[in-house]
Amino acid sequence: MIGPRLTPLAASLPASVPFVGPETQERTRGRPFAARLGANENGFGPSPRAIEAMQVAAGECWMYGDPENFDLRSALAAHHGCGIENVVVGEGIDGLLGYLVRLTVGPGDAVVTSDGAYPTFNFHVAGFGGVLHKVPYAGEHEDPWSLIAAAAGTSAKLLYIANPDNPMGSHHAGQRITQMVEAMPEGCLLVLDEAYIDLAPPGTAAQIDPADPRVIRMRTFSKGYGMAGARVGYAIAAPALISAFNKIRNHFGMSRISQAGALAALADQDWLHHVQTEVATARNALARIARSNGLIPLPSATNFVAIDCGADGAYARRVLAQLAEADIFVRMPFVAPHDRCIRVSCGPESEIEAFAKALPRALEAAHR
Amino acid sequence: MIGPRLTPLAASLPASVPFVGPETQERTRGRPFAARLGANENGFGPSPRAIEAMQVAAGECWMYGDPENFDLRSALAAHHGCGIENVVVGEGIDGLLGYLVRLTVGPGDAVVTSDGAYPTFNFHVAGFGGVLHKVPYAGEHEDPWSLIAAAAGTSAKLLYIANPDNPMGSHHAGQRITQMVEAMPEGCLLVLDEAYIDLAPPGTAAQIDPADPRVIRMRTFSKGYGMAGARVGYAIAAPALISAFNKIRNHFGMSRISQAGALAALADQDWLHHVQTEVATARNALARIARSNGLIPLPSATNFVAIDCGADGAYARRVLAQLAEADIFVRMPFVAPHDRCIRVSCGPESEIEAFAKALPRALEAAHR
Repeated sequence: MIGPRLTPLAASLPASVPFVGPETQERTRGRPFAARLGANENGFGPSPRAIEAMQVAAGECWMYGDPENFDLRSALAAHHGCGIENVVVGEGIDGLLGYLVRLTVGPGDAVVTSDGAYPTFNFHVAGFGGVLHKVPYAGEHEDPWSLIAAAAGTSAKLLYIANPDNPMGSHHAGQRITQMVEAMPEGCLLVLDEAYIDLAPPGTAAQIDPADPRVIRMRTFSKGYGMAGARVGYAIAAPALISAFNKIRNHFGMSRISQAGALAALADQDWLHHVQTEVATARNALARIARSNGLIPLPSATNFVAIDCGADGAYARRVLAQLAEADIFVRMPFVAPHDRCIRVSCGPESEIEAFAKALPRALEAAHR
Repeated sequence: MIGPRLTPLAASLPASVPFVGPETQERTRGRPFAARLGANENGFGPSPRAIEAMQVAAGECWMYGDPENFDLRSALAAHHGCGIENVVVGEGIDGLLGYLVRLTVGPGDAVVTSDGAYPTFNFHVAGFGGVLHKVPYAGEHEDPWSLIAAAAGTSAKLLYIANPDNPMGSHHAGQRITQMVEAMPEGCLLVLDEAYIDLAPPGTAAQIDPADPRVIRMRTFSKGYGMAGARVGYAIAAPALISAFNKIRNHFGMSRISQAGALAALADQDWLHHVQTEVATARNALARIARSNGLIPLPSATNFVAIDCGADGAYARRVLAQLAEADIFVRMPFVAPHDRCIRVSCGPESEIEAFAKALPRALEAAHR
């Protein structure tokens, strides 16, 4: 009696996961975290109107959601000044990245990203047999021109860049991204992950013609809009690429409740502005806390701050472990030299204070 | 300036979709349906406790859901008397079917199903380049032994059967399914879609050892539990297959709100029993309505009734169109000879009455 026969590719894949959730850590530890500042969630929460819309939709969830996501796509198109045919909605940027890689990357196809950038993108590339070429950051920034050169040199099908960047929190001016688009090698698609764009300084969002076939922009309701748990991402691109998602996506993959919540959240731009203010305040607080402990906060265009602990990865990992001991959930970059940092998300004052309280002892313990 | 280069497989796929949603029809018609009886949704709705849990979770959706779905999988394991390592949760059965096909089916691999069975499964098989072998129904039932013979003859990797069946509403005794499992060709996995099992007569659920590597069972909160819009499906299988999903699934694909709702729904088995009673009443009402119009209701083990309109597919399609004119949303089987039927979902009394009122005129108009 033999089991199911996996494809050779599926059989070859490791069972590793892109991220271990805080709930898993809590189960292992046997107690909950007191501050949840590790997943770049937005503790200031979604718009009250979005919550209300989701509460109403909960009672109506006997109905499938609209598989075309028509209302949400229409609102997004109006918001971005493009057509509904330029917008696809999916189960978070993670889901959309999976679909995009599936559409474009087959076994052996080259893909370019930065060494230390978003692991879930890499997970999908490996999952479809693509060959990942990693380019070093230039300091704390992803390096547009090295990425372009690598894409040209490998005849890559996709080039991934996040602006602002995760995990370093750095950003490029939108104009640099449009220069990148102009420099893209023929037949390579720029995957522009703008998950954190709603929290970035003015001018960070690149002005891109939605009909441009060289780029796809990824956006999400998880960060600025505070709805990570609702799983709503979207992409903006030329209609031919957008409609290609319909060949393969889970047409009934979106929660009806999440559709309603995202629609209401988008309509409440005042709440987004409120969140932007709160995030800026929390960023400043995190920077102060870092400095008062002799650490270096890196400039951030996101809802988190990468804090340089001033030594190597082993030391930062010890700091992280000590913070976890003190019930503070934070994460850190995976790759050297960025792993000298810990990455702390913005959150409500009480959680930031808990971090501030725990940090000195964590640093002291990590030194031993 | 050329666009992105799709894989040859992706480029070859049609842009067709498995199902057109009622919202799309409403937009085309320019007015809403009065009765939503076409998608086998459960108009009796989810448990009030599930609704309440989702309303609470809506306020907490700034947090990602647990990517391991630990609490829900634990509760499901307890419910089914298996281990958590036997359970994977995903974005509806549709999502899990997509992952399963991706894990097992590569270009040219054979897959067996019944001609007229679930189109979304076929969509996924085509989407990964599999070759679908379709076996005729035996009357209104999927034909276990023809399916097995086809799987053996084609060295198929997957054999799909739904019990109870959609779109005919028929079912096999659980014992016949266990006989099927015993007769499975080596290396072929039985995909047992039990979406409607919560509404079937006792004895329909096959008794299957969760460690059996020859079968994977698919279940959902969309039908009996009335939460189609929340997108929660799960599968029960041997641990090796379950853990393979972790190689490729969207680990953060589940809505936190839906996780909470499913957990509460599972705990409220009284509500499920209430729904079972309501569905049985509605099934009887639909059968009476069919007979009083000179049509033949097929026996149903589901929350819908296939009604034989007594002529060919063209006639049934006219009946369907006339019902839509009268603002009644129903669907029908795609394939002859089943397309002599229309398929009407169970729903609240008011919607069933609206159908009863519209049917005589629809039949009359379709005759012309």
